[in-house]
Amino acid sequence: MTPYAGAVHVSALQTPALVVDADALAHNLATMAAALPGPRLRPHVKAHKTLALAARQAAAGHPGFTCATIREVEGLAAAGLGTDLLLANEVVDARRLGAVADSGARVTVAVDSDETVDAAARGAVHEVVIDVNVGLPRCGCDPADAGRLADRARRAGLSVRGVMGYEGHLMTEQPRATRADKTESCMELLLRASSAVGGDLVSGGGTGTFDVNTWVTEIQAGSYVLMDTAYGALGLPFRQALGIEATVISVNRAGWAVADCGLKALGMDHGDPTIEGASVWYCSDEHVTFSCVPLPRVGDRVRVTPAHVDPTVAYHERMHVLAADGTVTETWPVDLRGW
Amino acid sequence: MTPYAGAVHVSALQTPALVVDADALAHNLATMAAALPGPRLRPHVKAHKTLALAARQAAAGHPGFTCATIREVEGLAAAGLGTDLLLANEVVDARRLGAVADSGARVTVAVDSDETVDAAARGAVHEVVIDVNVGLPRCGCDPADAGRLADRARRAGLSVRGVMGYEGHLMTEQPRATRADKTESCMELLLRASSAVGGDLVSGGGTGTFDVNTWVTEIQAGSYVLMDTAYGALGLPFRQALGIEATVISVNRAGWAVADCGLKALGMDHGDPTIEGASVWYCSDEHVTFSCVPLPRVGDRVRVTPAHVDPTVAYHERMHVLAADGTVTETWPVDLRGW
Repeated sequence: MTPYAGAVHVSALQTPALVVDADALAHNLATMAAALPGPRLRPHVKAHKTLALAARQAAAGHPGFTCATIREVEGLAAAGLGTDLLLANEVVDARRLGAVADSGARVTVAVDSDETVDAAARGAVHEVVIDVNVGLPRCGCDPADAGRLADRARRAGLSVRGVMGYEGHLMTEQPRATRADKTESCMELLLRASSAVGGDLVSGGGTGTFDVNTWVTEIQAGSYVLMDTAYGALGLPFRQALGIEATVISVNRAGWAVADCGLKALGMDHGDPTIEGASVWYCSDEHVTFSCVPLPRVGDRVRVTPAHVDPTVAYHERMHVLAADGTVTETWPVDLRGW
Repeated sequence: MTPYAGAVHVSALQTPALVVDADALAHNLATMAAALPGPRLRPHVKAHKTLALAARQAAAGHPGFTCATIREVEGLAAAGLGTDLLLANEVVDARRLGAVADSGARVTVAVDSDETVDAAARGAVHEVVIDVNVGLPRCGCDPADAGRLADRARRAGLSVRGVMGYEGHLMTEQPRATRADKTESCMELLLRASSAVGGDLVSGGGTGTFDVNTWVTEIQAGSYVLMDTAYGALGLPFRQALGIEATVISVNRAGWAVADCGLKALGMDHGDPTIEGASVWYCSDEHVTFSCVPLPRVGDRVRVTPAHVDPTVAYHERMHVLAADGTVTETWPVDLRGW
């Protein structure tokens, strides 16, 4: 787990290298655990896909996890982190999930249609939540259909733990008061569905609404622990912990430099990454071109901050945890990638 | 290499699954080998990062390869495809490349500065090309500095094979005649540098200029073999071979459907993917939301075409080759990922 422990400095890492600021990570874990202690947070592992980091979240007091893929569920269960795993996503073939439940982990899957209810039953997953659409055009049933789906699930022998609804379209809504108001409207839909469905779980929220969504019983935030520039713009109490250490490989006296951190090291859907004190021009497969004054020298290191944490992490095989002096204290495999 | 050979149909694959149309692949290989036979093409493996596919390119008659990362060089050499490997990228630590050269492969690295020349010498890479900037704001020396760098390299004991220059800013320039004119201007710079540098290699070009760049001795195209929607818009003689098989997991009667192919399965820098006959609304981590008439049913399969092949492939552990009837004929690990 820690092949570089102690001895190696960040400046000796092969680049591009995913790096995590240990202090910022500890701050984010502690801040969230204070705000949403224990099961009030169900950390979403899709943001980091890293078992060692999930173990840190469990050690911070959060017993359950939110997952986006079956592989995340399998990995957490195999690592002994399967106390309460929610696959907050629909699947039409639940057999691998049933196998995880058979192994002794607690597995709950989201359902939003007759087909996904039936798949859960066929796959021998015993517990479901009804996924309710609260405004984001993605998964989730019509709120008015939630009670009927719960009845169908119970008739199929499934235990219905409650509801979930993700207000993902509001995560970066500004200002905060507007975000809170709109979240309330979404959660009214979810609570009405909850009344029809029964059960004690009302799951939802994310990093952007972790402190304004006071209606759910648990928040599914994931990005808070590593952060990115998109969430960083919201003024949340979490610090930027994730970066990519890159090496300057070319400098052009016409006014730009190139570092070895490109499209295959960065989730790009939220736009270009940032480099402090520099202007990022564009990224190509293995390069970021940028300008700054003065220009760096070939061989210098730069720290690249991604715009979107989740698809960035999914490109990397490992992440290195750095002490304040740049020493690599731990190296964690990003072991929940793929499907 | 072929765990699914023969028996499995694409409809039985776990999704999202990277799939390759065998007929389109064969067409692309044959079309390029006819246009640029043998060493006239130096296929760029960064586009597919797959040894089995590189072996197909070698079998089509192309003895050398272009690489973007040290790992690609290492992987090709270890697989016996190291006849003539060009790392068309700068590195400030060439020791891993020197080790590959020691193992018997032929390794050439691009240099564009005193520092990268010195790194090649220190790393015991014996052969270099001078990388010349021909207009793309990225790597490459000032054309006027190329001769001096070649002299420095030779003084350091390196063999200088020639020059390279990548007109990447012209790849999707339209119409074709403008692309050809602008390529000529870029290549005038490269040929002038070539005169100053010496050597017999003049390497450049890509899929977008494979047939208009008639000045180089070899073309570094990679995308041609799998293709994407960005290159697809140019009217090139290559067919779309790559897709992502996805499953519809949610359908909302308000007018949209959701399939399990999201940001972690797609390079997004060129924008959203496409689904034939559908309108793609947006992608999130594990989802693509789209509309079409009529809406599909939960459990249906859809084929998603990425906008940019290179960063899409880099997310996937394997690609499945499909016969015309959808049978999986081969499954290839995407084994050159990472750095």
